[in-house]
Amino acid sequence: RVNGERLWQNLMEMAAIGATDKGGNSRLTLSPEDSAGRRKFIADCQQLGMTVTSDAIGNLFCRYAGTDSRADAVVMGSHLDTQPKGGRFDGVYGVLAALEVIRTFSDAGIRPKRSVEIAVWTNEEGARFTPAMMGSAVFAGIMPLAEALERQDSDGISVERALKQEQWAGESPFGRPFDAYFEAHIEQGPVLEASQRTIGVVTGGQAIRWLDITVEGHSAHAGTTPMASRRDALLAVAAMAAELERVAARFAPEGMLTIGELTIASPSRNTIPGSITLSLDLRHPDDEVLARFDSECRLALAAVAEGRGVQVTVKQHWLSAATPFDSDCVDRVDSAARMLGYIHQRIISGAGHDAIHIAKHCPTTMIFIPCAGGISHNEAESIEPDHAEQGANVLLQAVWGRANR
Amino acid sequence: RVNGERLWQNLMEMAAIGATDKGGNSRLTLSPEDSAGRRKFIADCQQLGMTVTSDAIGNLFCRYAGTDSRADAVVMGSHLDTQPKGGRFDGVYGVLAALEVIRTFSDAGIRPKRSVEIAVWTNEEGARFTPAMMGSAVFAGIMPLAEALERQDSDGISVERALKQEQWAGESPFGRPFDAYFEAHIEQGPVLEASQRTIGVVTGGQAIRWLDITVEGHSAHAGTTPMASRRDALLAVAAMAAELERVAARFAPEGMLTIGELTIASPSRNTIPGSITLSLDLRHPDDEVLARFDSECRLALAAVAEGRGVQVTVKQHWLSAATPFDSDCVDRVDSAARMLGYIHQRIISGAGHDAIHIAKHCPTTMIFIPCAGGISHNEAESIEPDHAEQGANVLLQAVWGRANR
Ligand SMILES: NC(=O)NCCC(=O)O
Ligand SMILES: NC(=O)NCCC(=O)O
Repeated sequence: RVNGERLWQNLMEMAAIGATDKGGNSRLTLSPEDSAGRRKFIADCQQLGMTVTSDAIGNLFCRYAGTDSRADAVVMGSHLDTQPKGGRFDGVYGVLAALEVIRTFSDAGIRPKRSVEIAVWTNEEGARFTPAMMGSAVFAGIMPLAEALERQDSDGISVERALKQEQWAGESPFGRPFDAYFEAHIEQGPVLEASQRTIGVVTGGQAIRWLDITVEGHSAHAGTTPMASRRDALLAVAAMAAELERVAARFAPEGMLTIGELTIASPSRNTIPGSITLSLDLRHPDDEVLARFDSECRLALAAVAEGRGVQVTVKQHWLSAATPFDSDCVDRVDSAARMLGYIHQRIISGAGHDAIHIAKHCPTTMIFIPCAGGISHNEAESIEPDHAEQGANVLLQAVWGRANR
Repeated sequence: RVNGERLWQNLMEMAAIGATDKGGNSRLTLSPEDSAGRRKFIADCQQLGMTVTSDAIGNLFCRYAGTDSRADAVVMGSHLDTQPKGGRFDGVYGVLAALEVIRTFSDAGIRPKRSVEIAVWTNEEGARFTPAMMGSAVFAGIMPLAEALERQDSDGISVERALKQEQWAGESPFGRPFDAYFEAHIEQGPVLEASQRTIGVVTGGQAIRWLDITVEGHSAHAGTTPMASRRDALLAVAAMAAELERVAARFAPEGMLTIGELTIASPSRNTIPGSITLSLDLRHPDDEVLARFDSECRLALAAVAEGRGVQVTVKQHWLSAATPFDSDCVDRVDSAARMLGYIHQRIISGAGHDAIHIAKHCPTTMIFIPCAGGISHNEAESIEPDHAEQGANVLLQAVWGRANR
């Protein structure tokens, strides 16, 4: 069994790095705050005699050597980066639960047959550089390294430059074989809390599509241009958003739709917006239904644009297909939860996770614990210490079993 | 009569300063580009033997001495600053038409009884620092200097600092008496073009209200938060904009409504927006109707907020009351247009102008010329050289008459 108090204390120590005034965390990927968090984690791993390497996209791998040095490692992990104003547990919980598992091995003086590693994936959030889950995508060969390195943040700084500034790029090879990958994470949704379960046995992840939308109207003077002759990009976007909300209702309750970014070109109070860009995040557990959801959104956008005399263009920015997890790994998590006497249920992940990419590389699954009100990507994100401990115990058992296979 | 070709050439020379790639101008107030435009203008005035002063908000006054040095001056003018992506004529036309008037006096070797000045008002556009028409407001005692100096742009640079950087603050006293003020300007609307008139005799300006709106919902994860339990600030704002559009329709055709700025706090593609700020520009020729328009907008905002479980707060940012112009000045413009044989009509200004503030200080009016398609606050802003010449001739006659009164 893990030491729940030590895990919680470690979570609070990490939360002090890049703390926000409202009790959340701001450690954007490859920022000085992110680096400070990584350095603390590395120091803790080194104290346990773990070896630390990184790859060219800055993913970290901290290895606790097994008795059979030729056998592929069992890997745990998640991410330490956060949203611009994120919570204290998204990603961090999975990394520190994994550290607690190794500490428990180390305290007990035991070594599994296979080595056990903790992976810290670069840029899981996708908030500073898109897409999300970048480091795991490059590791798993889903995104070419060169493409990832070119991505820029809103200040025009590339991933390549940020990696150089923060000095995280190393030599560890991409696509090295893993025996299996287990990621513990907060659910970030309300399902477990509502059904009063403490462990989610994650059977897969839903499909995600990110679209880039541009609306071109005509900028003109706010005080002299008759309402009837305007081609106001902002009012057009508002009408589009209302239509998109109606489309989403047709795909309820599984279908989800979010406009997270919206930027007016050259905004000014007394100028009718002429050009607007916005993002659209669409999700559904079923790839085919998501494809239909996507096309109905495009039809709705085109109809509003036509009616208002504005131009709309829609480009796919990123796609992540629905991903089933490995049945052996899922079963190990399920049995561990049952053996430990924790109330659990099977669940599909609404969020994208590094595990979704790693599932293409090796047998993979995830363990969810509840978060208060299902709130995440918010400074108010909160979990129970008891649930944190239970999730880490399930991780311990599942990994121990697999690593001695 | 003025020299139309010289006026046009001078307009094109100014348009070369801060030129944008789409044929417009970007000379934000108190930027290096704005300063370059001012320096060119000052050099041209000095060639005519005019004396140049400035006041503490950076308004410029270039004086062509009359025969009676104790008589109050007749002042012409407008502004040289532009929108972030503005046109070549908004403001600039009034300043350079005034310069052409003085050149015509100078060529003819004549001096009116009263001195004639050209005023270049600081920050008319309100794009970099709000509110619009700042320099004329401070001159006319409508806004305290200290308040204006504190206003900051989106980079946190204050008017005070920008004035120091660009070195435009001088000693000329605020509120010095003027005999009268005449401002030539492009209409920035479609009225003159539609009625095929070339001169607008401006009888006053409509009322303007600027509101600041904040909408607070709840930020949460885009992939895990069921649509039914979201408090999405962006979808709320979209619904609000649709309602505001409906309110505006009830005040058609005079009522005008524009959302020119909209900012999501900590935007991220996969985070439901939790907090959004936006601007609202409301206009109507009648103060009382505008007040009703304003309250109906607030009611509509509150109703949407209530229905969606979000908070909305509305603050008045700026108010400019409907302003009638002086009948002697208006009549002089009207007679000049008639005498010159130009097709003219009386018109109310939809845009705010420095003349609106100066009207509180001395007898004032404006002269409008058409602009293509009524388009302004847009790089595509365009006028006919012939109309530019006609407007300057009307200005010449009206000012000459008043200055010899
Ligand atoms: N877990 C998480 O917040 N991932 C970011 C990718 C997503 O948008 O789902
Ligand atoms: N003329 C002009 O564009 N003025 C700016 C103030 C306004 O918004 O009307």
